[in-house]
Amino acid sequence: MYVTIVNSIIDRIQKRELEPGEKIPSENEIIREYNVSNTTARKVLQEIEGGGWAVKVRGKGTFVKDFVVERAATKILSFTKNMRDQGLAPTTKLLKKELLDTDVLITVSGKRYTIRKPVCKIQRLRFANDIPMMVETRYISQLYCPDIMKFNLEDSLYDIYQQEYHLSITKIEQDLSAVFLNEESKINFKVKDDIPGIKVDGVTFCGKDMILEGEESIYRGDKYKFSVQAVP
Amino acid sequence: MYVTIVNSIIDRIQKRELEPGEKIPSENEIIREYNVSNTTARKVLQEIEGGGWAVKVRGKGTFVKDFVVERAATKILSFTKNMRDQGLAPTTKLLKKELLDTDVLITVSGKRYTIRKPVCKIQRLRFANDIPMMVETRYISQLYCPDIMKFNLEDSLYDIYQQEYHLSITKIEQDLSAVFLNEESKINFKVKDDIPGIKVDGVTFCGKDMILEGEESIYRGDKYKFSVQAVP
Repeated sequence: MYVTIVNSIIDRIQKRELEPGEKIPSENEIIREYNVSNTTARKVLQEIEGGGWAVKVRGKGTFVKDFVVERAATKILSFTKNMRDQGLAPTTKLLKKELLDTDVLITVSGKRYTIRKPVCKIQRLRFANDIPMMVETRYISQLYCPDIMKFNLEDSLYDIYQQEYHLSITKIEQDLSAVFLNEESKINFKVKDDIPGIKVDGVTFCGKDMILEGEESIYRGDKYKFSVQAVP
Repeated sequence: MYVTIVNSIIDRIQKRELEPGEKIPSENEIIREYNVSNTTARKVLQEIEGGGWAVKVRGKGTFVKDFVVERAATKILSFTKNMRDQGLAPTTKLLKKELLDTDVLITVSGKRYTIRKPVCKIQRLRFANDIPMMVETRYISQLYCPDIMKFNLEDSLYDIYQQEYHLSITKIEQDLSAVFLNEESKINFKVKDDIPGIKVDGVTFCGKDMILEGEESIYRGDKYKFSVQAVP
């Protein structure tokens, strides 16, 4: 019985009938609405809170949590598409761009990859509904993308790779690790409190042994989950 | 040039010629050994530190970091095998076991899964070379594994599923998120300082729509990286 009630309330959260910040039914409302005991009603609220859907505020009630973005780590998926799929409006702010006259080394999965010079290094802050979500540093090979700095680097890089250079991404290798945010990231994310972060180190290929770009990104841990699927 | 030197030093770390805690060549030693400028030598050390291989201690030198385990998130891989593959000795301590007479709900990838009652809930602490690495809570369906509590639950569960119940794992769905460790986890991990953690919520299938177990684990963020591969 309690599973049915939990599911019906979470459905309403997922469909945004109950929006972030809104109060979900209280223990007493659940008892009346579904005709269940207070033990069951309490369990329903615990389950919804435990599942990360809502937060209990002492003496005030239980409130729908802010959105958390689910990112499928095993799909090649642009930030832009990932946000739009979740009904959020993505924007990008270019923080830095720089042409490096040195090779860049990236370690992923215990292997070391070299992005050959010259390398275009860009740093971008990415937003969903105007909320800063992640900071990415990308090291783009000028071997495959000569003069990439002439394009608007606030546009989707995947679109630039494809439309301007006719490159297709064949594989992305990434390492995910948990970190504390440093002061610079906190300023970028406009957060004062400590929040956990997810660091992504990656290399993107546009063919066998052809490294198109390296990546070092910090995702907000309070706003992101990465989903993966393992099969035999 | 500096890439070659970086690679040769990291090779020695990976091969354990330079062990965790050991000092790596200093700036002056690199200058002499490889006949390079102090700018290059400094860059080599920065790169090795930046790649997470070593830590600089002011006035003392640069030291090889403790091991970090790489876990391939897109492979079905037991903790035991993952540790052995990296030359580490795995052990397990059962912290709790309990038979639940309620369904258990797990949310993964925005989907809700139900593990039907009765459910065997176990909590285990897992070690590599006697260092606590992760705490896992598993909810095992008694539908597929009746009387599983009679077995030694410090053994590999994957072996028990296969050998005692003739079940094969067909798919694992997992969500990875970054968290702060709570006091209970810190006590389990025997750490005093704040370290970041990686929370894994997962469901394991032993056939289409057949949920064998649910998982809620906390991995030490200072000891773990998860690697993933994305393809089109």
